[in-house]
Amino acid sequence: MAIFFHYKTILFSLFCLLCFAFTSPHIIPKFPSSIVSPELQQLSISSQNGFYRTKFFTQILDHFNYNPQSYDTFQQRYLINDTYWGGAKKKAPIFVYMGSEADIEWITQNTGFMFEKAPYFNALLVFIEHRYYGKSIPFGGNDEVANRNSSTLGYMSSTQALADYATLIIDLKNNLSAIDSPIVVFGGSYGGMLAAWFRLKYPHIAIGALASSAPILQFLDLVSPYKFTNIVTQDYKSESENCYKVIKGSWKLIEDTANTPGGIEQLRKSFRICKNNTISAGGLKNWLRSAFLYTAMTDYPTPTNFITPLPAYPVKKMCEAIDSISTGNETFTKLYGAANVFYNYSGTVPCFHIGSDSEDSSLYRGGWDWQACTEMILPLGGNNEESIFPAHKWNLEDTISYCKNEYDIVPRPHWIIAEFGGKDIGRVLKRFGSNIIFFNGLRDPWSGGGVLKNISKTLIAIVAKEGAHHIDLRFSTKEDPEWLNDVRKQEVKIIATWISQYYQDLL
Amino acid sequence: MAIFFHYKTILFSLFCLLCFAFTSPHIIPKFPSSIVSPELQQLSISSQNGFYRTKFFTQILDHFNYNPQSYDTFQQRYLINDTYWGGAKKKAPIFVYMGSEADIEWITQNTGFMFEKAPYFNALLVFIEHRYYGKSIPFGGNDEVANRNSSTLGYMSSTQALADYATLIIDLKNNLSAIDSPIVVFGGSYGGMLAAWFRLKYPHIAIGALASSAPILQFLDLVSPYKFTNIVTQDYKSESENCYKVIKGSWKLIEDTANTPGGIEQLRKSFRICKNNTISAGGLKNWLRSAFLYTAMTDYPTPTNFITPLPAYPVKKMCEAIDSISTGNETFTKLYGAANVFYNYSGTVPCFHIGSDSEDSSLYRGGWDWQACTEMILPLGGNNEESIFPAHKWNLEDTISYCKNEYDIVPRPHWIIAEFGGKDIGRVLKRFGSNIIFFNGLRDPWSGGGVLKNISKTLIAIVAKEGAHHIDLRFSTKEDPEWLNDVRKQEVKIIATWISQYYQDLL
Repeated sequence: MAIFFHYKTILFSLFCLLCFAFTSPHIIPKFPSSIVSPELQQLSISSQNGFYRTKFFTQILDHFNYNPQSYDTFQQRYLINDTYWGGAKKKAPIFVYMGSEADIEWITQNTGFMFEKAPYFNALLVFIEHRYYGKSIPFGGNDEVANRNSSTLGYMSSTQALADYATLIIDLKNNLSAIDSPIVVFGGSYGGMLAAWFRLKYPHIAIGALASSAPILQFLDLVSPYKFTNIVTQDYKSESENCYKVIKGSWKLIEDTANTPGGIEQLRKSFRICKNNTISAGGLKNWLRSAFLYTAMTDYPTPTNFITPLPAYPVKKMCEAIDSISTGNETFTKLYGAANVFYNYSGTVPCFHIGSDSEDSSLYRGGWDWQACTEMILPLGGNNEESIFPAHKWNLEDTISYCKNEYDIVPRPHWIIAEFGGKDIGRVLKRFGSNIIFFNGLRDPWSGGGVLKNISKTLIAIVAKEGAHHIDLRFSTKEDPEWLNDVRKQEVKIIATWISQYYQDLL
Repeated sequence: MAIFFHYKTILFSLFCLLCFAFTSPHIIPKFPSSIVSPELQQLSISSQNGFYRTKFFTQILDHFNYNPQSYDTFQQRYLINDTYWGGAKKKAPIFVYMGSEADIEWITQNTGFMFEKAPYFNALLVFIEHRYYGKSIPFGGNDEVANRNSSTLGYMSSTQALADYATLIIDLKNNLSAIDSPIVVFGGSYGGMLAAWFRLKYPHIAIGALASSAPILQFLDLVSPYKFTNIVTQDYKSESENCYKVIKGSWKLIEDTANTPGGIEQLRKSFRICKNNTISAGGLKNWLRSAFLYTAMTDYPTPTNFITPLPAYPVKKMCEAIDSISTGNETFTKLYGAANVFYNYSGTVPCFHIGSDSEDSSLYRGGWDWQACTEMILPLGGNNEESIFPAHKWNLEDTISYCKNEYDIVPRPHWIIAEFGGKDIGRVLKRFGSNIIFFNGLRDPWSGGGVLKNISKTLIAIVAKEGAHHIDLRFSTKEDPEWLNDVRKQEVKIIATWISQYYQDLL
């Protein structure tokens, strides 16, 4: 139930803020808790049903320096399920999820893959929450203090998170007397980046990593800043040329309408925006853009309830709404139909609340917004002329100025590449490192920054033409297409190889 | 000339303080600048002779957090020699020395291997100074401020140093337009640990590492705490059983003599200790122990002037002094003869100054002492019954209490293993990582914590039965034994393989 109180972090889990945050920090759509589906509500109480137990680990604030404050501690939450574990004596494996920028319960409930494969591997399941998210808040668990300014937020970084995972896992193995149990790490999205990096930086702790939809190359100039929205564009274009054209043409139409007398009211009516919601052309465009973006990311082949309830193939559904003859020629009616797929699939929303230009940006303080202002400088969200979105050049200056204004902080855009690499990844890792699966679905805009080619025999890219954002990690359903079953089978097979090789090496 | 003003850091470069610091922080022998040899003086002015140019890089204070103070910068010194470089256009290699706990000029002057091999490889040479040593002092270069307390010293850590090297190298390559020049890193002792860790953590920056005498396994319970002095014991025993017995028997004799009336004066006379030097049995024993320890570490087959002028095979020379019939049966005369090899090989010292128990420990503030109080908790210096030194059990509590007292800080003895691994290193790295040479000389007590067996085809251990502390990295001499020439040939051959493979991969 409480899940959607965390709507902000939940949305961040799809890197949403990132996309346009620095030019339009107000685009984040709001999800009223009323739209949480019954199914999701049921999942949210699964901890009481033995789905997992909640534990806390006393974590150090800063692993890399020795200032007095570095010794401060906080309670890091992790969830554990030992239903299927073969136990320490049998050296049965431990599967660890590297929590990303969201509440770990919500993440866990969306990572059915691990639960479904645990019986086969006799694996212990552990899901660790990322510092500064969910209930793993430094500074006495006080969200307000932790997010106050750069003095308190400063301890949130990917390297600290990885070190958290390292120390927690070592301690857990000691406590379970499971020193010889192999660790396999998992993660999706930012969590997938962490999983890949963890295997690279801590090979002595994890024998392998499944990094799903991990855009580890989405930094500096490693990939084009247009790639991300080019994929979104392609997603809609692949459904129908008309769908793409209607959406592409709508941005100017909204602007023009807003500038005519009575235009705002016309927009309000067309998009069924609540009466008490002050609207603007910018706010409306962001609201629509969010719908198109997140739907592209979560264009799953079955009905899902990840960030919101969605039908199977939601991009297709949006385009059907746009292409439908029954909506006539009215562009706004078509767009409304498309937006409705994302914002009101349950059909229960009486009217919509959309963000405004003037919205208080402190709402987004901390969390991914902070990470995107320090090290997670992912150049994306630029739109070229062919983009489904209005042409827009991504530039670092916007980020710098936003972050200066918001946190009085200067981003370090070169850091991630310096620390984790990425440039010429094929050449660098061809003769270094092993046991990482990079899964990407090509319909996912984040695949543009993913590893799409095998690097070596043990650094493997699994690419699904039809796949969306870390779909492989979700619970399976009876309706899953064959290619998705195949992806999961491949993953299981490879992980099994790692584990069996580990046992052999142990002899 | 100024080199021996840095006597403290120079000694620390052999991990000296570490050995017994926490039980007897006063054992550090003092090297008056008067004993600097003419040869060394000449080397010390080599920067003016084009041996290298001195440069500075603006380095960030903390790479891993984003507190306001983390953005502070300091000037990091590095030395560069491009005499032999083939240039950026030819993608000629860059050899980078990972500075350790000493002044980088002194280190450079003792790393002839790189200068001698640069012509063969057409390599650019770069020697980077470790933060908080030499002239690379944070907090405005102010040594006193930087070493004041844990708030300022806190930023000295191995991970920060490695990140310094990563960012400096990337910047340097950009500035030289040498993006495609392969980087090979080198290091001896702690610098060797940094070199090995750098290749493991930053494979995207360095294609390989020569880690000389790097005791990366000298942590926690990975090796016995007695191994270190057992090797010292063996070094002296291998010269003669009598030598070992005389040294072993001397500790009680010194104690007993000091406790008799007039005993202290007898000791003063026997060891030619200066009249104004207050002495104690403890101080004298530490002074002798230092001589035996550092001589074992630097038991080189040719005359050297590393930490002090020494003859070829100085351990043999010490034992010869002890075993000599001409000294009669007088134990102190024998010991004096041995100590004289280490403290007065030049024969110019009129009388000795030895440390006292009551010495001000703040003399050792900062530097390696700090590192040994935070993360470099190397359990060693324990002596078992057979040890040449008095039996002594190493225990963490001594370290904890010393560090609490000195810096009000709690050591993190588990950190290095958590961050860099070490446990079951063979199994872990057998299928992960490549291109590291671990050189160890078995007469070097530090070899006890080194990697002595090949891990894989590209993670190679070169072990020299007769070798001492990172002897391979020293300037060659005409008198070098064949085994040493062979070691260096092997190293060159392997490094050449890395570079040639890199160029092939580049095609």
